[in-house]
Amino acid sequence: MAPFINHRQWTVEWGQCDPAGIVFNSRFFEVFDVSTWLLFEAALGVKAHELAKTFNIVGIPLVDARANFLKPAKLGDVVEIASQVTEFRRSSFEVEHRLSVNGELTVEGSETRVWATRDKIDPEKFGAVAIPADVVARLSRA
Amino acid sequence: MAPFINHRQWTVEWGQCDPAGIVFNSRFFEVFDVSTWLLFEAALGVKAHELAKTFNIVGIPLVDARANFLKPAKLGDVVEIASQVTEFRRSSFEVEHRLSVNGELTVEGSETRVWATRDKIDPEKFGAVAIPADVVARLSRA
Amino acid sequence: MAPFINHRQWTVEWGQCDPAGIVFNSRFFEVFDVSTWLLFEAALGVKAHELAKTFNIVGIPLVDARANFLKPAKLGDVVEIASQVTEFRRSSFEVEHRLSVNGELTVEGSETRVWATRDKIDPEKFGAVAIPADVVARLSRA
Amino acid sequence: MAPFINHRQWTVEWGQCDPAGIVFNSRFFEVFDVSTWLLFEAALGVKAHELAKTFNIVGIPLVDARANFLKPAKLGDVVEIASQVTEFRRSSFEVEHRLSVNGELTVEGSETRVWATRDKIDPEKFGAVAIPADVVARLSRA
Repeated sequence: MAPFINHRQWTVEWGQCDPAGIVFNSRFFEVFDVSTWLLFEAALGVKAHELAKTFNIVGIPLVDARANFLKPAKLGDVVEIASQVTEFRRSSFEVEHRLSVNGELTVEGSETRVWATRDKIDPEKFGAVAIPADVVARLSRA
Repeated sequence: MAPFINHRQWTVEWGQCDPAGIVFNSRFFEVFDVSTWLLFEAALGVKAHELAKTFNIVGIPLVDARANFLKPAKLGDVVEIASQVTEFRRSSFEVEHRLSVNGELTVEGSETRVWATRDKIDPEKFGAVAIPADVVARLSRA
Repeated sequence: MAPFINHRQWTVEWGQCDPAGIVFNSRFFEVFDVSTWLLFEAALGVKAHELAKTFNIVGIPLVDARANFLKPAKLGDVVEIASQVTEFRRSSFEVEHRLSVNGELTVEGSETRVWATRDKIDPEKFGAVAIPADVVARLSRA
Repeated sequence: MAPFINHRQWTVEWGQCDPAGIVFNSRFFEVFDVSTWLLFEAALGVKAHELAKTFNIVGIPLVDARANFLKPAKLGDVVEIASQVTEFRRSSFEVEHRLSVNGELTVEGSETRVWATRDKIDPEKFGAVAIPADVVARLSRA
């Protein structure tokens, strides 16, 4: 697989930094989340708020998230973000986000998400269903 | 009116502070919001997640919010919060939050909220309806 | 005064919305803060993280913030933001942010900020000093 | 090792939930961070804002964070949090946070943190130093 990679930029804001003057850890997970939505938008041509309706799912809930903080990012840093799906399974997939500042890898994040639908019997519950072949194809080609 | 006043405490967290080492402004508005829910819970005996169902409303959306920052609050500060409804109109009301550290007023906040129901004709729209007399009574007595 | 107006765009993210599906109030105050930094950067040519050093101040702390929520903003909305300084006093100033979606005013925000320096006697304290004429001039011309 | 375990409670707030009505992922990482500070406070008797000064460090920066989301947590849920250090190495350590609702494990989080001091030659850099034996001892006994 030669995954579709979405590139975007994020300039670190004052309100995202902690008393040490660097980005507070939870902010990176916000950035990962947005980056995944934008990756899907870029690859599928479907905006975040139309994804559920378009594919008849409830969404792509997160079941696992991880970040490795290699270097701190600080106020004003221009962070380059490269996001891609690194693995597709039947109904779940892995997203990887690589954040760099001045060409140096700063944070590596990854998310495990599920292609989720509402349970037919109990609408309070979610179920994982097979990811459409077209979605896999569009996120898998360079 | 001798309003019902709800008192609670909040200890300032690392992730709520900015590079100047003080609470970032938006965090106070999060604190105001929680304080209003807890004021209603204390006065009405109805928890936040049961308010809409109990009163057959969609919620108490905010139409205006204001804060006056008199002194900075910093990491580890134990903030005393006193919240009360200062005015009821037919379908809207004013909530005031007074935040103190070591007995000194630090931040004063206020919110204008609406007692909102779903529009009968267009379910996408909200409408303001009269606040029940019992709700007014419970939030108005000391 | 024909103020310098900075225009920018913000697309509402999933993590910025609450269970009602609309932007949670505190997020607007984050947006106002960034918008002020970007207004200063556009008018003065000085980036947020260099403002303090460039002007020998500790920053532009907020002493008052207000928002009027006219219409809800929801996931995927593309919000047009117009920010300007509407008034300069000796050592404080007013910033106004007008947020529109599809040409309709959605939220109006305003901030009162101080041009602050560190107290010469007690470095723990801040003092308000006169705003440089050049700063006033650059933010005041169209 | 029979680690010191700190127990605390967190009631899920409206502003912490997303349009699906469940806690937005980044909020859990805020909760982990606070939980670590409170674990240290409970075990060492040193408050968050005094930790750096007490031990002559710059802090306990995060180098890795992970969360496994087993079940969603929703508005009003009372979350029981159990936090402990599960491993000490020379200058880094692992913190584990187990979050339960109604006795069922909801989220498991873990953080890798460093006992960090300022570099003697380049004050812009941090270095990892040996964790004091007393700190290890206090966090290791039940």
